[in-house]
Amino acid sequence: MFLHDMLDRATRLWGNAPALADGAVRLTYRELDDRVHRLAAALQGLGLVHGDHIAVLSLNGFRYMEVYLAAALGGFVVAPVNTRLHPLEVEFILNDGEIKALLLGSAFVPVLEQIKGNLKRIRHFVLMAEEAAPDLYAYEQLLADADPTRLEQRPWREEDLVHLCYTGGTTGLPKGVMLSQRNVVANVHHAIQMAGFNERDVWLHAAPMFHLADSWACFALTLLGAFHVFMEAFQPAQALELIQRHRVTASLWVPTMINSVLALPEARTFDLSSMRRLVYGASPMPPERLKEAIALFGDILLQAYGQTESAPFLTCTTLRGTRPGGDARDIRRLASCGQEIVGVEVRVVDDADRPVRPGEVGEIVARGANVMLGYWKRPEETAAALRNGWLHTGDLATIDEENHIYIVDRAKDMIITGGENVYSTEVENALYRHPAVLEAAVVARPDEKWGETPCAFVDLKDGADGVTAEQIIAFCRDHMAHFKVPRSVVFGPLPKTSTGKIQKFALRDRARELRD
Amino acid sequence: MFLHDMLDRATRLWGNAPALADGAVRLTYRELDDRVHRLAAALQGLGLVHGDHIAVLSLNGFRYMEVYLAAALGGFVVAPVNTRLHPLEVEFILNDGEIKALLLGSAFVPVLEQIKGNLKRIRHFVLMAEEAAPDLYAYEQLLADADPTRLEQRPWREEDLVHLCYTGGTTGLPKGVMLSQRNVVANVHHAIQMAGFNERDVWLHAAPMFHLADSWACFALTLLGAFHVFMEAFQPAQALELIQRHRVTASLWVPTMINSVLALPEARTFDLSSMRRLVYGASPMPPERLKEAIALFGDILLQAYGQTESAPFLTCTTLRGTRPGGDARDIRRLASCGQEIVGVEVRVVDDADRPVRPGEVGEIVARGANVMLGYWKRPEETAAALRNGWLHTGDLATIDEENHIYIVDRAKDMIITGGENVYSTEVENALYRHPAVLEAAVVARPDEKWGETPCAFVDLKDGADGVTAEQIIAFCRDHMAHFKVPRSVVFGPLPKTSTGKIQKFALRDRARELRD
Repeated sequence: MFLHDMLDRATRLWGNAPALADGAVRLTYRELDDRVHRLAAALQGLGLVHGDHIAVLSLNGFRYMEVYLAAALGGFVVAPVNTRLHPLEVEFILNDGEIKALLLGSAFVPVLEQIKGNLKRIRHFVLMAEEAAPDLYAYEQLLADADPTRLEQRPWREEDLVHLCYTGGTTGLPKGVMLSQRNVVANVHHAIQMAGFNERDVWLHAAPMFHLADSWACFALTLLGAFHVFMEAFQPAQALELIQRHRVTASLWVPTMINSVLALPEARTFDLSSMRRLVYGASPMPPERLKEAIALFGDILLQAYGQTESAPFLTCTTLRGTRPGGDARDIRRLASCGQEIVGVEVRVVDDADRPVRPGEVGEIVARGANVMLGYWKRPEETAAALRNGWLHTGDLATIDEENHIYIVDRAKDMIITGGENVYSTEVENALYRHPAVLEAAVVARPDEKWGETPCAFVDLKDGADGVTAEQIIAFCRDHMAHFKVPRSVVFGPLPKTSTGKIQKFALRDRARELRD
Repeated sequence: MFLHDMLDRATRLWGNAPALADGAVRLTYRELDDRVHRLAAALQGLGLVHGDHIAVLSLNGFRYMEVYLAAALGGFVVAPVNTRLHPLEVEFILNDGEIKALLLGSAFVPVLEQIKGNLKRIRHFVLMAEEAAPDLYAYEQLLADADPTRLEQRPWREEDLVHLCYTGGTTGLPKGVMLSQRNVVANVHHAIQMAGFNERDVWLHAAPMFHLADSWACFALTLLGAFHVFMEAFQPAQALELIQRHRVTASLWVPTMINSVLALPEARTFDLSSMRRLVYGASPMPPERLKEAIALFGDILLQAYGQTESAPFLTCTTLRGTRPGGDARDIRRLASCGQEIVGVEVRVVDDADRPVRPGEVGEIVARGANVMLGYWKRPEETAAALRNGWLHTGDLATIDEENHIYIVDRAKDMIITGGENVYSTEVENALYRHPAVLEAAVVARPDEKWGETPCAFVDLKDGADGVTAEQIIAFCRDHMAHFKVPRSVVFGPLPKTSTGKIQKFALRDRARELRD
């Protein structure tokens, strides 16, 4: 099975079934299939051939899914571009990724204007909207003019590159993760088995579609003939309204999305009873906050862990062992990102790649058909990541007797103070127990005496403005070893990536520049 | 992933979780893993080596699952033998399949006594029971004496033969279907996606474990760390009692099992609310009967279709489109065996392998990683079944606009009685051995209890008019399993086409109108 077989199957088996809703747009699978054939034929008509790279820069929407599906059909490699990048980073990706055509949403026309003169290979620009704009092909016009009978399909091979997903930028220049047919197809099957998705699911595309947190669902839920609901960008009230209106059964959110919903006073007025699975990932949630989420959504939260390099899923909690009312061990398990999913092997290892003992900190490594081909034009970084036959994730974790994995930190987020390791998530979990704390992040601050000290950035809940740094520090002293207690506390909203991840690199910069 | 990885995974991830209940026996996954390692080491200790064939002749039970799992671990090919075969058929399979060791249940010691003198290669006999018996190894003693640290594991390859499953021979003799690692593993993943099984499932092994209707579940539910419940042979009241006691969530039954439960006056007194999926297969159910079953179990029935040659699943209904209270089309869909499952391609084709149009009768063909290697030592039949890259099932069906498949005639001449396949030619070959028989044809006769029974039409030789139906039936009993023996015998000339072929469709009409 290849990626283009998935829409083909849905259309053959359930052509008249509704495929998607996006605002006022409604399409059946047969209609979606026709549009996808037209888009693929139109791109070929522009001169693109099998193996050419195309990029997408757009907010979420049904056209984003169409591009993924059309590329699979027409033979193109898709590079989905992070919408929150600086124009210069976008320019780097378009050049580095050897992109021949860019499909962009209306919001990103100004970005294109800034960088257009520096783009080396791109010949074609398509505006993914109803309307047209000067110097851009109009998406709907391309579809209307296309002749799907002239579509040429060359066979894919399992090892062929299909997605080029740029990540990072936190440590310098973005790297293109090369995912093959085999990688993406394997993850689709893993995801279906991980959460038991089926043809009756209604999926809300809530996380950004340029990110693997959501893009896999364009294929997996299509393969099953399920129903897609789109939202341009995550807004808590709108998300709940869409769940209620479309009887959404499943979605993948990051913890900040869940936080924003929990902070919504009217959250309980929505009918969320259709929800069957809420997968969350990208970063762990403090157990206290998770319990609140379970109170709102029911016992349907699954923590998944993965990374772009593994297309993405590696571990997931099962509903067994995460009961909030369970015994002490079950409560502890709420903090776990679960166990290896079916189809993937995951280990936690020491520097010599030997499995650590339960409770010891090590690096998460993984192997499976979902592990990337490597980094685009970065043989050294590829070799470093894929050594000894295992993907080395750079994430630090412990593992318990039954292979439940607990992420303690990204390797680069760990704070070393006076020779002691402090895992930022451990301090953050304590901060979240403080009743006034809405969000918190802890990073390393350079220190002459200790090398580094923990520095806390805290966003307080509305009406909690009276809380002082001294009170926060005193609270921490009651909950952890003294060397882990933040030496500095900074109040204010936290900077975030477009996927809702707190931007620790930005906080590290701020911590570096703090005056006492 | 190979078959032995499945128990390994369950043990690593959920070693202390309960794995199974069989009568008073309870095992955790760690305990099961230890026993399976011991059994594999014990069989190697008897001299069996990687690639050797072993056979199992037993009713259902946890030891049957242990044999499947131990063979995967120790490197043996398993030939599960139909428990209802005539001793001469068992003898044929053990010799034809080059079996080196036979593991048998207590009930089958008398069968062994009858055929032991004619077995060519078998050196070892193991009694799968607590107790010992003369000339047989005692299973539990073998395990107690085994040294699991001496287990030798040689790597499997995906194309390696793992199961040799004998099915009724259309040419008279049973044929060994060769299933590879790839075949059986693929079906495990297909089955999980087909019905959304997960770690919280409790599976009742109700269909015979020698049959692919159930044997896959030994691997799939183990991979998930789910819970297994065993019953020696299907008894309707006991099945319901086990569902109630163990909160069974899922099982696979044949329609005669469902019929027997529906006929049970006390069926409604059991708590069946834990049931989440009841897969049924082997033959279609009349829609009226299916509605009764839905009334008892809830809207959880899925009709699956497959065959031994495809390990076994090919199609399955989804719960979408099978609503009993739905419109006329939905009611019609109750008679469908569903659509191709994820991972398998299924078509209905004409004699030239071209897809038929909706409503036209054609043959079901399929391809996928689950399709067998071929028939053991039957290259011609293999080539006939696997021509043009597709498995030709021999089953006739129609297909509708949305690829729902409706089986018209399970196989042109096959009779399905109590869930067992009876190939008419097999019975006919025996009849032809009777000295008084000139010509014979066997067709299905509808039967309330068994679904169908074999009905024989016999033209006697001149001068043999004194032969009675009772004598014919008695003759058959000496030559085949009891379920294959004709229940009715009609004497007289057989209707033929102009080319001299017996017109079975005409005989089926006559059988339908027979009075007892």
